Amino acid sequence: MRVDTFGARREDLTARGWQAGPMPTLVLLRHGQSDWNAKNLFTGWVDVPLSPQGEAEARRGGELLKEAGVAPDVVHTSLLRRAISTANLALDAADRHWIPVRRDWRLNERHYGALQGKDKKQTLEEYGEEQFMLWRRSYDTPPPPIEKGSEFSQDADPRYAGVDAPLTECLADVVDRFLPYWTEAVVPDLRDGKVVLLAAHGNSLRALVKYLDGISDADIAGLNIPTGIPLVYDLDDDLSPTVPGGRYLDPAAAQEAIAGVANQGR
Amino acid sequence: MRVDTFGARREDLTARGWQAGPMPTLVLLRHGQSDWNAKNLFTGWVDVPLSPQGEAEARRGGELLKEAGVAPDVVHTSLLRRAISTANLALDAADRHWIPVRRDWRLNERHYGALQGKDKKQTLEEYGEEQFMLWRRSYDTPPPPIEKGSEFSQDADPRYAGVDAPLTECLADVVDRFLPYWTEAVVPDLRDGKVVLLAAHGNSLRALVKYLDGISDADIAGLNIPTGIPLVYDLDDDLSPTVPGGRYLDPAAAQEAIAGVANQGR
Repeated sequence: MRVDTFGARREDLTARGWQAGPMPTLVLLRHGQSDWNAKNLFTGWVDVPLSPQGEAEARRGGELLKEAGVAPDVVHTSLLRRAISTANLALDAADRHWIPVRRDWRLNERHYGALQGKDKKQTLEEYGEEQFMLWRRSYDTPPPPIEKGSEFSQDADPRYAGVDAPLTECLADVVDRFLPYWTEAVVPDLRDGKVVLLAAHGNSLRALVKYLDGISDADIAGLNIPTGIPLVYDLDDDLSPTVPGGRYLDPAAAQEAIAGVANQGR
Repeated sequence: MRVDTFGARREDLTARGWQAGPMPTLVLLRHGQSDWNAKNLFTGWVDVPLSPQGEAEARRGGELLKEAGVAPDVVHTSLLRRAISTANLALDAADRHWIPVRRDWRLNERHYGALQGKDKKQTLEEYGEEQFMLWRRSYDTPPPPIEKGSEFSQDADPRYAGVDAPLTECLADVVDRFLPYWTEAVVPDLRDGKVVLLAAHGNSLRALVKYLDGISDADIAGLNIPTGIPLVYDLDDDLSPTVPGGRYLDPAAAQEAIAGVANQGR
């Protein structure tokens, strides 16, 4: 349907002397393995570094961009170093280290509330499968809020000064805080015909894919985005995906990784 | 003199109910050793990476910032990866990886014209001490221009699309292209009371120090800025240095390095 609409509109516009500009392109890149992914801890807004494997994944992501001839014109990152380092390493590998950078907390990972810093396997054993999966995968059930001033809270962190930072979030909360940033900051870059790279996190990218591909609150639970493999969306004039779900630059590796993510905490 | 003027003006303003804001602070960081510094080649705009030693210098620079409690609020870099990587590594070490980033070609190293890619020692032998030192240190004698399309030219480089990029530069040319960027992009950040980090190059930083400290065309030849050691300028309301020459965060290492740079090419 979208392709038909797109074609018809472009015909109209061309008849009126409109020239086709470059197609806006969106590239999503989920950060590679972090120290805490490796240790199987809930991370959320805790600012842990990439593991050596995560650094290698980021470089590989940049090489995939270069091989595919996908050259980002601008990068948006969260305020967390695992996404920032991923962007730095990938762009360096792709020879695009010099492009403009934008950063915003609204690209951050979901805030995991009181679960931040806790072991996933222990949490599963302590609270049981049902509660564990509700916190991890339900659309609208946030974990208990984190206690202010506790070890893994961010209330004294200068990067969130002036921000009404959450104390916990479900995926619906991430959608709510991410979409205004999309509209204010990402859409203008896409409207300029830019290739836009978003270097971010499992849940901020799931929030965006839910919106882009029109995925239901129920179905988004089953969607996993693999780490380190660029996911490219070619967008039409309405900024809708020309191909639903986009395309991974290494589809075989993406399929394999998606299966792996689904088994975390087991 | 500046201190007196500053004091008098602040008294005036305070009498009129003006509140003192944070002092603007400028931090200069010259990138650490690159692959071509290590090989003693003229680099200019050729985009070579840091050597492992250069990466260690950048991290050390970030640790010095952290130890001194100098926390950049914004970073400006050139478009060259040795300055970009220096900023990335230093800010990560200083836990300030999340601050806003601005990039501009006008922070680039001096364009070394036809000397780019040439061995410094061979150039000294080929052209003699006088010509060699004119090219390296005179204020207004540029090397011969680089040939368009030659191995080490940048005319096909997408990062300079739309830029009236030079084919060679003397230090006076660097001053001429840098100062408009200073006024347009750096001064507004300083006027906001921000701590501004400039991660750049020997000659773009010399151009700035010449301006800030009012150094003559003749005297600037004798000024070397060491790599990887943050140089902090606390600025007054006129954005003049409160202490001429600023302060290095590791003064002993700075003195030692300055002596070393002066002997390059020997």
